[in-house]
Amino acid sequence: MDNKIRIRFAESTDLEVIRALVVELAIFEKEPDAVLATLNDYQEAFNSGLITVFVAETADEIVGMTLFYDTFSTWKGKMLYMEDFVVKEAYRSKGVGKLLFDKTLAYAQESGCKLMKWQVLDWNEGAVKFYEREGATIEKGWWNGKIVF
Amino acid sequence: MDNKIRIRFAESTDLEVIRALVVELAIFEKEPDAVLATLNDYQEAFNSGLITVFVAETADEIVGMTLFYDTFSTWKGKMLYMEDFVVKEAYRSKGVGKLLFDKTLAYAQESGCKLMKWQVLDWNEGAVKFYEREGATIEKGWWNGKIVF
Repeated sequence: MDNKIRIRFAESTDLEVIRALVVELAIFEKEPDAVLATLNDYQEAFNSGLITVFVAETADEIVGMTLFYDTFSTWKGKMLYMEDFVVKEAYRSKGVGKLLFDKTLAYAQESGCKLMKWQVLDWNEGAVKFYEREGATIEKGWWNGKIVF
Repeated sequence: MDNKIRIRFAESTDLEVIRALVVELAIFEKEPDAVLATLNDYQEAFNSGLITVFVAETADEIVGMTLFYDTFSTWKGKMLYMEDFVVKEAYRSKGVGKLLFDKTLAYAQESGCKLMKWQVLDWNEGAVKFYEREGATIEKGWWNGKIVF
């Protein structure tokens, strides 16, 4: 599988497919109606440089992506935050996720970040094990606060 | 107290005091050696526009701050992320935190964000209650993953 998959930076024309992958993951995470951000919201964020995306593609189609942006840890310094990470269901457990994750990690290092950070649902054992194999620390003592306008 | 406190955007010359507040909070959070980011790291992040800071000041000194940046929620759209929020110990429980938090929330709304997000330690009951009084949702089902380089 691996040698048929290419990882590249996404272009603006990929955003519709990228958003469809986000919707697929939201369904997996039991929140099918959670994706309120429109394609236009994605385009504005992409065109302003707020978000960067790696896509994994076969000869035929995009089968996965990581979406991320630069942030700043007041403890550690410049930090890459991976907001979303999706592999199409039919392509899971075939090494596509590892290719995407490792590429994103390498990009974070090359661009001078001191760390990379992301979140995982506490019940998603497969994902937690994947991240631990990658050498990640999983922090369980923080809660998210949010106010939606 | 409230009428003696002024909230304003931080300037580059405030960064040393801002970093000292971060160190004070790290000690409170039982991680006294965690602040590896240097003043130079703060200056680079500030000067490149990656971070924005509100400070609360009396006539004499800065007594609190919120440090934040724009991010993107793939579910909701443009999102303000509050990375750090500190009030000096002597000025807690006097309304300074509410002034800072409300100013940051208003700024997020004015700048077109769909939501504001942050994290809180699960044992920090006082902070959790403060956020709930502000109308926040506290999500307990996500863990943080991170890899430090």
